[in-house]
Amino acid sequence: MTTRFDVLTIGNAIVDIIANSDDAFLAKEGIIKGAMNLIDADRAEHLYSVMGPAIEASGGSAGNTAAGVASFGGKAAYFGKVSDDHLGTVFTHDIRAIGTYFETKPLAGTPPTARSMIFVTPDGERSMNTYLGSCVELTSADIEEDVVADSQITYFEGYLWDVEAAKDAIRLASKLAHKHGRKFAMSLSDSFCVDRFRDEFLELMRSGTVDIVFANDDELKSLYQTSSFDDAIKAIREDCALSIITKGEKGCVVVTREETHNINAHPIDKLVDTTGAGDLFAAGFLYGLTHGHDLKSCARIASMAAAEVIQHIGPRPQVSLKDMLASEGV
Amino acid sequence: MTTRFDVLTIGNAIVDIIANSDDAFLAKEGIIKGAMNLIDADRAEHLYSVMGPAIEASGGSAGNTAAGVASFGGKAAYFGKVSDDHLGTVFTHDIRAIGTYFETKPLAGTPPTARSMIFVTPDGERSMNTYLGSCVELTSADIEEDVVADSQITYFEGYLWDVEAAKDAIRLASKLAHKHGRKFAMSLSDSFCVDRFRDEFLELMRSGTVDIVFANDDELKSLYQTSSFDDAIKAIREDCALSIITKGEKGCVVVTREETHNINAHPIDKLVDTTGAGDLFAAGFLYGLTHGHDLKSCARIASMAAAEVIQHIGPRPQVSLKDMLASEGV
Repeated sequence: MTTRFDVLTIGNAIVDIIANSDDAFLAKEGIIKGAMNLIDADRAEHLYSVMGPAIEASGGSAGNTAAGVASFGGKAAYFGKVSDDHLGTVFTHDIRAIGTYFETKPLAGTPPTARSMIFVTPDGERSMNTYLGSCVELTSADIEEDVVADSQITYFEGYLWDVEAAKDAIRLASKLAHKHGRKFAMSLSDSFCVDRFRDEFLELMRSGTVDIVFANDDELKSLYQTSSFDDAIKAIREDCALSIITKGEKGCVVVTREETHNINAHPIDKLVDTTGAGDLFAAGFLYGLTHGHDLKSCARIASMAAAEVIQHIGPRPQVSLKDMLASEGV
Repeated sequence: MTTRFDVLTIGNAIVDIIANSDDAFLAKEGIIKGAMNLIDADRAEHLYSVMGPAIEASGGSAGNTAAGVASFGGKAAYFGKVSDDHLGTVFTHDIRAIGTYFETKPLAGTPPTARSMIFVTPDGERSMNTYLGSCVELTSADIEEDVVADSQITYFEGYLWDVEAAKDAIRLASKLAHKHGRKFAMSLSDSFCVDRFRDEFLELMRSGTVDIVFANDDELKSLYQTSSFDDAIKAIREDCALSIITKGEKGCVVVTREETHNINAHPIDKLVDTTGAGDLFAAGFLYGLTHGHDLKSCARIASMAAAEVIQHIGPRPQVSLKDMLASEGV
């Protein structure tokens, strides 16, 4: 099956502002560790004023996934809403420069392009503080049918559920994808996000709006409100044709109606910054799926991509994942 | 001697835009490898359009040095000219966030804050392409006498010689520093920069405008137009009371009228990006000098700081140099 794109991703177009901090700082500022904390413009200003020296890097969960697919040499496309400001220019440059198709019309004027202030603690965990800015203006009008039709898999981040108009856009995209015989996938994004939208996420799966789900163990347990990982796996096997559950350094589990595969995490030298781990995992898996790999190989490719991104600061690969895959021979 | 500041640095206030590239790209775009290439606004736009995905990080040679001094726990100050735009906000945030005093009045409007597009090749070498923007507006009016008077050492980057008005500012700063019994230091910055301003740099040294000079071996050989390192060392011993010559992985040489010390480079695991190596070397040396260390210890502290910055992408330390110094016990 030859399509113009292997993977289309849809998400909040965000530039990350990344600094180190300690746990006391998170506590003092009331930042939930490891989570995506939504903030308004005033809090964004405050947090920047107390933030240490930072670096800026294009991010956004689904944007990172598209960049990852492109880094593998896959054909990637992206929908997301920036504004026509400096950060919008940076985001647009970076995602196109890695070879991703990105033509979503930028917003003229305010709100400005979204930014997430990310604090990385000494344990490598990242705590995000996201001001959604222009992302809230992503609507059904931004769903380019020809691109959805010509993408083997369309994938979106659960974070989009924080943007009311985006829900219709995603449902439209799913309808279009299925109309053209394509698959539709999502990430559960964040356990607090799951908590906000549990029923809707379950409905997306049970209605067949979504065919493939990516989640980590916390998100999965939140989805089914259980502390039992096994019970949650049993439940998602019923609800979704294919789900991939990551467990950090403990590897991942690939679940279909008939099969369960446990795959080890890719070894790393040193954990530096977990930002982008799940996004790059999804990138590797989706690249594998759209390039004829079996599920176990997909999971290994996914783990390799996640291992790359957590060994440096920043949410996108710093080396060619295509070269890495060739040299590591997963 | 207790002063409000240990080290004041003066330089071009620049935000770095950093991407990987190969050597063929540099050749195709006519970028001199390893050098600081000055570019205009049109060329900046062109290079950005062909640049790969990038990260943004506050840079500027003397800015990096101030950040390094602050990272050691030293009291640092900085003079440099940003504009009141997004990159100016980023630069200002980052240098203040690490604890550096920075109050140079930003330019209202254009030209915009300076940026340098830096291409890092697989050998770790960086090739810079700098659009000076608002830096060209740094003048004598930006020299805060009270800060110079209250800094043990004032240091400037030779790159400032590309900014006509900055020359008077530097001569004024030197006069003020000496009037208050302080030392004045410079970096030769870049061998092509030395080539542009050889006579003026020699005059700064011979006239006693500058007491301490930092250079690498290429810059030193360019200064004296010789291929003999030994001849160049002999010459600078005459011209300058204290000079410190770095030789990359071969370590450095500290030269005074009476003494010569050869110090090995600090060991590293992997060279990633040489950006900031000389700047952080200077930071470590100046921190050492202003904290009662002997010249050999200063060189070891300097080498340690340089080793930290070349093992990651970006021109400023990603860890606390104070903690690193404490744990490595130089």
